[in-house]
Amino acid sequence: MHQAGLMMDRPLLISAVIEHAAAQYGDVEVVSRETHGPLFRYTYRDCARRSRQLANALADLGLKPGDIVGSIAWNNHRHLEAYYGVSGSGMVIHTCNPRLHAQQLIYIINHAGQKAMLFDATFAPLIKGIAAHCPTVKTWICLSDAAHLPAIDGVADVRAYEDLIGPCSAQFNWPEFDENTGAALCYTSGTTGNPKGVLYSHRAIVLQAMAGCMPNVLSVSCRDTILPVVPMFHINAWCIPYGAPIAGAKLVLPGPRLDGESLYTLMEDEKVTLSAGVPSIWQGLIAYVEQKGLRFSTMRRTGVGGSAMPQALIAKFADTYQVEVRHGWGMTETTAVATMGTLTPRDLALPKEQQHAIVARQGKSLCGVEIKVVDAGGATLPRNGTSQGELMVRGPWILREYFKGERSPLQDGWFPTGDIATIDATGTMQIRDRTKDVIKSGGEWISSIDLESAVVAHPAVAMAAVIGVKHPQWDERPLMFIVCKPDQAVEKYELLAFLAERVAKWWLPDDIRFVDSLPVGGTGKVQKEELRRKYGGVFG
Amino acid sequence: MHQAGLMMDRPLLISAVIEHAAAQYGDVEVVSRETHGPLFRYTYRDCARRSRQLANALADLGLKPGDIVGSIAWNNHRHLEAYYGVSGSGMVIHTCNPRLHAQQLIYIINHAGQKAMLFDATFAPLIKGIAAHCPTVKTWICLSDAAHLPAIDGVADVRAYEDLIGPCSAQFNWPEFDENTGAALCYTSGTTGNPKGVLYSHRAIVLQAMAGCMPNVLSVSCRDTILPVVPMFHINAWCIPYGAPIAGAKLVLPGPRLDGESLYTLMEDEKVTLSAGVPSIWQGLIAYVEQKGLRFSTMRRTGVGGSAMPQALIAKFADTYQVEVRHGWGMTETTAVATMGTLTPRDLALPKEQQHAIVARQGKSLCGVEIKVVDAGGATLPRNGTSQGELMVRGPWILREYFKGERSPLQDGWFPTGDIATIDATGTMQIRDRTKDVIKSGGEWISSIDLESAVVAHPAVAMAAVIGVKHPQWDERPLMFIVCKPDQAVEKYELLAFLAERVAKWWLPDDIRFVDSLPVGGTGKVQKEELRRKYGGVFG
Repeated sequence: MHQAGLMMDRPLLISAVIEHAAAQYGDVEVVSRETHGPLFRYTYRDCARRSRQLANALADLGLKPGDIVGSIAWNNHRHLEAYYGVSGSGMVIHTCNPRLHAQQLIYIINHAGQKAMLFDATFAPLIKGIAAHCPTVKTWICLSDAAHLPAIDGVADVRAYEDLIGPCSAQFNWPEFDENTGAALCYTSGTTGNPKGVLYSHRAIVLQAMAGCMPNVLSVSCRDTILPVVPMFHINAWCIPYGAPIAGAKLVLPGPRLDGESLYTLMEDEKVTLSAGVPSIWQGLIAYVEQKGLRFSTMRRTGVGGSAMPQALIAKFADTYQVEVRHGWGMTETTAVATMGTLTPRDLALPKEQQHAIVARQGKSLCGVEIKVVDAGGATLPRNGTSQGELMVRGPWILREYFKGERSPLQDGWFPTGDIATIDATGTMQIRDRTKDVIKSGGEWISSIDLESAVVAHPAVAMAAVIGVKHPQWDERPLMFIVCKPDQAVEKYELLAFLAERVAKWWLPDDIRFVDSLPVGGTGKVQKEELRRKYGGVFG
Repeated sequence: MHQAGLMMDRPLLISAVIEHAAAQYGDVEVVSRETHGPLFRYTYRDCARRSRQLANALADLGLKPGDIVGSIAWNNHRHLEAYYGVSGSGMVIHTCNPRLHAQQLIYIINHAGQKAMLFDATFAPLIKGIAAHCPTVKTWICLSDAAHLPAIDGVADVRAYEDLIGPCSAQFNWPEFDENTGAALCYTSGTTGNPKGVLYSHRAIVLQAMAGCMPNVLSVSCRDTILPVVPMFHINAWCIPYGAPIAGAKLVLPGPRLDGESLYTLMEDEKVTLSAGVPSIWQGLIAYVEQKGLRFSTMRRTGVGGSAMPQALIAKFADTYQVEVRHGWGMTETTAVATMGTLTPRDLALPKEQQHAIVARQGKSLCGVEIKVVDAGGATLPRNGTSQGELMVRGPWILREYFKGERSPLQDGWFPTGDIATIDATGTMQIRDRTKDVIKSGGEWISSIDLESAVVAHPAVAMAAVIGVKHPQWDERPLMFIVCKPDQAVEKYELLAFLAERVAKWWLPDDIRFVDSLPVGGTGKVQKEELRRKYGGVFG
């Protein structure tokens, strides 16, 4: 009935990305911080050549298409080659997050049935602790030359990456296969239960990387120098390791040095125009720059996500340093960013503070991705900027089911993100809370994040956390925890008065507890589960 | 063996493009020149609504997915709605080129088996001439309201578009189907033999539109206002009618007025930042701007293709008017542009004239497209900027076979373009000639285009054409035709001396003929076939 289109049946494959860069931007530099310190520099042509050598080396090891090859590594050039050499061969690169507990690492490596592991020398102690528990891993490869190869007790045959690929031919015919083939695997951090694996396809990664380069998103061109601080061990470093070669942008990989001074120096030395990272990284960078009274000579734009970027930091980047913030949202299940904001001409005509308020939201869905917010019954809520509901997402680079998962998490074809959000009439989405943290009070929702953001603006407050506590009449009511700044104090009624000017009356916490500390996990977020276990009794 | 990726199986569909724009850039304007004169303006939200009304109207007419609906129309808002309403319904929009001969139009409409025709009032005389010969077309729809509906002798029931869609609901659930489904059909101009149809898939169009918006290509963002002068009746107006909504750019459609004054006024009035068209359009625009001593207030970038952009015009845009030229190449068989050039930081460090020489080439292949040049035996030639061969192209938006074609034109999976080109070490491609125009002399090739470009730089020369003429010893030798500028004259030996400084000795024409005129066809190109018929004897 439909007419079949008569276009070539050419798959979107990751191997084509690095060959595209080698053929057209062959002389463009990739600069990489070695794990042992110095800067290494080469070109996309070199990177393609060595990716092919790696592909030959993997085949020589007896690895086959479909096999899973792990990595525990910083953002560096060998990790980049692994992105291409492994996936381009039809194997799957399993990027392991070194911040996981050893038990979780052992779980995911075994769950994946991983055959080999590439790791940076930094993580040798980690490897030592887990190797004996990972029987499927037959080959351990340190991303170094022989001179920097660490000895690891209990792991007999650690290979040096350079020794492994050095003898191999730089000729390799990248295989062609279905673009829906798995290319990369990343496990969620799994705060409750075991981590779950997300298996990205070639199609998902190439489409996301293209969408991520678009002018409304990160805007990456051959005139840019891009420094991804977002780690290559987590959601594909936002697909920047694929997008930069697509665009022919110079790529700067910071290795293990992510402190403000190291990043600033690298940005200035390499004339970085564009970067991407989480807010805490930018806090550290700005603190350093402010302390030293420095400026950015070439930086013009930065992507930020992972958690909400405070409006004050957005303002500082924009007004003080003339760096445009592109604020986005994504999660392990969405390959990379799924939404990102860019100020429109209409926005740019507003006063600065209103512009920053718009940037503080998480932006619009990228071309290819659809978003909606739904109520508890699954009904779509209006795009009015105030109706809060669970954020649902759909598109070719969104998870369908978890790797070796038991049942699909999808609801009516949409992925439920576990985030509570609003969407306004311009399609701009704002994360308001996590479903598990939102407080359901009298049939309405109170955002714990909004309450926390409001109270930390008080000069005496260092940290805040809000949880819902069972209430006989209202179902749940907010309970607030406050850590004061050193040598500062504030009364409960003062904070309530402060909040009353900033949130609705019925949002005011039923109680405020002053504590010396809050439990913070590996990702820098307050562990509300622990607070709930300890304090989640009943009010009233 | 391969691991199947676990991403959602979501197709790339054209209907999603306009809904993406409506949801996120709903208030962004589309400005359109009506065929009868005035400017019309509305928004992407309105465009999506009316596209859905059109989809309902087509269904009410009994049209079904797979049916072919034609258009003969300018770049205007109703044509834009047809792009979405027809393709979004799973039907195929057949954009007919009004510059074809009536006989060719009749041929393609019948060959396609077209069911309905949308046309602008401008083309009523054309419709009158062909309608009786198009028995499959059951419905003729004029893209106008009832007040501007022309009477067409011999066509009983011409419907006004506004009357057709006006009563229809704006609710329409866009169907979902395979992204490889045909969406649009365009026939080649067919200088020899019958025109051949190219059936574009949804996948091809969405991928090309995304690639075309990338910063290295046209660079389209929500901060741009884009004016496509390239016609919507030919190779999808370079997919700008899809790319602009993807980017949320304001879209300005010039209707029938393509003269320098009209374009300039529209650009200034609507604050156009970006445009796209063929070189002759830009010649007309610059002539007007120069004559009136004007400047461009907002224009910053223009895409150009269709034929080679002269370097002098590139320099004028860049140096005099600060408009960056993005020079590309594509053909009916490649959906839209397949290559486009953007100066890299290395290029931008060169003297201006060298930069312009680089822009005068046709650029690098877009991400997703591969190019190569091959010799007569099909062997790939080196990328050295001098080895000339036939340009071959491959990718997901390149033709596999012609519509109802007898056999695939592909050679080993690549589409042979019929263009002679070089590719240099940076992947930058330059069109040197057409395979049928290149002169094969003593086993080497002489580019007729290069000879013509060299000689028209002489102050007395207005036009030039070079053809190959059979030669007993050398196989072929060049014969040059010259039209002098009014009141100018030049001797044969003077031109030969002039050329000898610019091309290789063995390239010099064996003879030069001075003529009063050259035969120029509807696309503005010299009809070398006619010269060959008349002069293609034997030298020597």
